[in-house]
Amino acid sequence: MARVVVEVMPKPEILDPQGKAVTGALARLGFPGLTVRQGKRFEIDVDGDLTDERLAEVNEAAEKLLANTVIETYTVHVADEAQADEGDR
Amino acid sequence: MARVVVEVMPKPEILDPQGKAVTGALARLGFPGLTVRQGKRFEIDVDGDLTDERLAEVNEAAEKLLANTVIETYTVHVADEAQADEGDR
Repeated sequence: MARVVVEVMPKPEILDPQGKAVTGALARLGFPGLTVRQGKRFEIDVDGDLTDERLAEVNEAAEKLLANTVIETYTVHVADEAQADEGDR
Repeated sequence: MARVVVEVMPKPEILDPQGKAVTGALARLGFPGLTVRQGKRFEIDVDGDLTDERLAEVNEAAEKLLANTVIETYTVHVADEAQADEGDR
């Protein structure tokens, strides 16, 4: 069982109302000087061996379904063994 | 301007309806064998120098406000220079 992590963030030129709300809330609650952008993190457990083909599939899923590439960027990386073990379930 | 990344994930023992929905959608749309858990990623730009005190503040903000530690775990790490540059805005 291999774990792949997909991170999706709003593009820099795109407004990020969630992030703006968090930025404002942090400032009001005693944490000024922090500018936040909020995105999503997907931890994906891939059944079987993580072949290049499987990784390409995950990439395709990220591109087509997990991220809206009009307004978001995404990165795909394989989690270290340690992380995958830690999160085992 | 330093960038700190806070990642928030549902705890392993907690149900993750969002992740379950994504897992089901991926399977239906031609990507079987992927089990997804969905969390949040915050990219935080810290005004001024990233001293230990500032980093401790971000940690406190993550603990108290960004994550619900009853049901979520969080990690805080400083982004590499390269990443911070890449995302500059």
